[in-house]
Amino acid sequence: MGNRRALARAISLVEDDQPEGPQILSDLYAHTGRAHVIGVTGSPGAGKSTLVNALARSYRAAGLTVGVIAVDPSSPFSGGALLGDRIRMRDLTGDPGVFIRSMASRGSLGGLARATFDVVQLMDAAGFDRILVETVGAGQAEVEIAEAAHTTIVVEAPGMGDEVQTFKAGLLEIADILVVNKADRSDVDRTVLALQAMQSLGSAAAAHHHLTVDERPGPGRQPDGSWLPPIVKTVAAEGRGIETVRGWAEEHARYLRETNGYARHEGQRAAASIRHILYERLPAMLLARLPEGYWERMIRDVVNRDVAPHAAVDALLRAGNWLG
Amino acid sequence: MGNRRALARAISLVEDDQPEGPQILSDLYAHTGRAHVIGVTGSPGAGKSTLVNALARSYRAAGLTVGVIAVDPSSPFSGGALLGDRIRMRDLTGDPGVFIRSMASRGSLGGLARATFDVVQLMDAAGFDRILVETVGAGQAEVEIAEAAHTTIVVEAPGMGDEVQTFKAGLLEIADILVVNKADRSDVDRTVLALQAMQSLGSAAAAHHHLTVDERPGPGRQPDGSWLPPIVKTVAAEGRGIETVRGWAEEHARYLRETNGYARHEGQRAAASIRHILYERLPAMLLARLPEGYWERMIRDVVNRDVAPHAAVDALLRAGNWLG
Repeated sequence: MGNRRALARAISLVEDDQPEGPQILSDLYAHTGRAHVIGVTGSPGAGKSTLVNALARSYRAAGLTVGVIAVDPSSPFSGGALLGDRIRMRDLTGDPGVFIRSMASRGSLGGLARATFDVVQLMDAAGFDRILVETVGAGQAEVEIAEAAHTTIVVEAPGMGDEVQTFKAGLLEIADILVVNKADRSDVDRTVLALQAMQSLGSAAAAHHHLTVDERPGPGRQPDGSWLPPIVKTVAAEGRGIETVRGWAEEHARYLRETNGYARHEGQRAAASIRHILYERLPAMLLARLPEGYWERMIRDVVNRDVAPHAAVDALLRAGNWLG
Repeated sequence: MGNRRALARAISLVEDDQPEGPQILSDLYAHTGRAHVIGVTGSPGAGKSTLVNALARSYRAAGLTVGVIAVDPSSPFSGGALLGDRIRMRDLTGDPGVFIRSMASRGSLGGLARATFDVVQLMDAAGFDRILVETVGAGQAEVEIAEAAHTTIVVEAPGMGDEVQTFKAGLLEIADILVVNKADRSDVDRTVLALQAMQSLGSAAAAHHHLTVDERPGPGRQPDGSWLPPIVKTVAAEGRGIETVRGWAEEHARYLRETNGYARHEGQRAAASIRHILYERLPAMLLARLPEGYWERMIRDVVNRDVAPHAAVDALLRAGNWLG
């Protein structure tokens, strides 16, 4: 429990951009790289939080510890912006093998992704076996966070309409596991068929389009070494299908380790971590190098249409002596 | 129509990061600043696209030209990722006073916001009177885009559940006009009451909490110079309530011009434009200054846990000679 309080304090320091944050992260970094990071994404109403809750309990039953990071402000884990950091997922609280953290929405563009990456590292260093990151399936920073997970679960729900189907098209590409939640609804098979149809437009299935349906290999690892996302039906609120999802998540982790997928993912995560820190630090560094009042004058010139934004950036770079 | 083709070409150059983009934007910048930019945001299923469509027709009927930018990939204006740039809003196409553009989702963090700002400028320079920017009401880049509009309309729909209500809490703060769409549903009044209750927690209403309900001023401009967002019920699919929304949008533009709100907004937009260009250019500039293979070596060191990401950034800044 002492450790737990230390973790909570470290997360707060990192989230609040306190000067100690980078040093803590650097000190702990050698202890990271053990956790399997699982992104759970999908639009509001699909039941992401319920699935995350059920998955966390399933991992606990299997003797594994779980960190949960809720990036989605609509998540019950977050409790919404009005309720702040309060946690409504009662059945997980009080269990020392579970650590739940919701990310307050961040002011600066890129700040959310950077802070989420940092908190993943802190939970990883603290020894949690699995880290579940819940993000709303819309928004550029949020999709980038989901992509940085080792395994990405995209959650659908039946009957969310044609509009939502197309909306998800962009998410299909990043899914390692597709979950159709609320599978007790009558139109679940229509949703599964729609997902299969979209999948068959993708490259993995297209590789053996000359095969009849029966000849096609099942989902998961394919003979050619690629990964075909399984489609799993769940009723997360009743715990149905959760063991299957967990089984596929473990299978996907094995697949990544046995191919070079894990190393590739780790490289992507490292590059993304560095990029997000650069996004935050470089503009701040430039501003610090400008002459007094220069930034304000440039904004005024842009507002007055005397200088265009791109030209203003050139001027700022010159003024900060950052060109050439 | 020649102008129209030139605009489409300019947008493509800017979106695709072609080298001509910044020059075109700079050349045209002096002609911007005339359009009233209206952000329309809200979660999938609230009917944003239908509202945008109806608003655009309403503006056309009033003799004004309209640019539409759909940032939400689920928008029928976008047609979803599978259908690319195809436009399904038939009743607007073919009208030379309307220009519709959907933004393809962008690879780099911050790229979406930067490109959207650029396209707003191009449409503004092309002389469109009103520019409607539709964004999904989730995601950091997307909220930042909505905030950059002069007037932000947040769309709700009844019966989207408690989860969605809290989700919207963050959006309430950026709303200048609140629209409860699909107001023919039975639970519309519950939604309106919930919004009013949330509003009364805010500062504008709190200022006169000692007044009884009847004594309170109506929405819009308040005696103290602040703005209390009106709550408008619409059935966008049937055009009901649309004239009221348009009326409030015009009223809000007047309010901004008569207070210092417009200048403040323009300053925020200018600062955001510059920031987004910096976000894209600074990391690229740093990479270009690094010794051959340095970036790849640093990624490998981070993956191997020999160097922490924050320390890697310090090393990159030193190697690019950007410290001190």
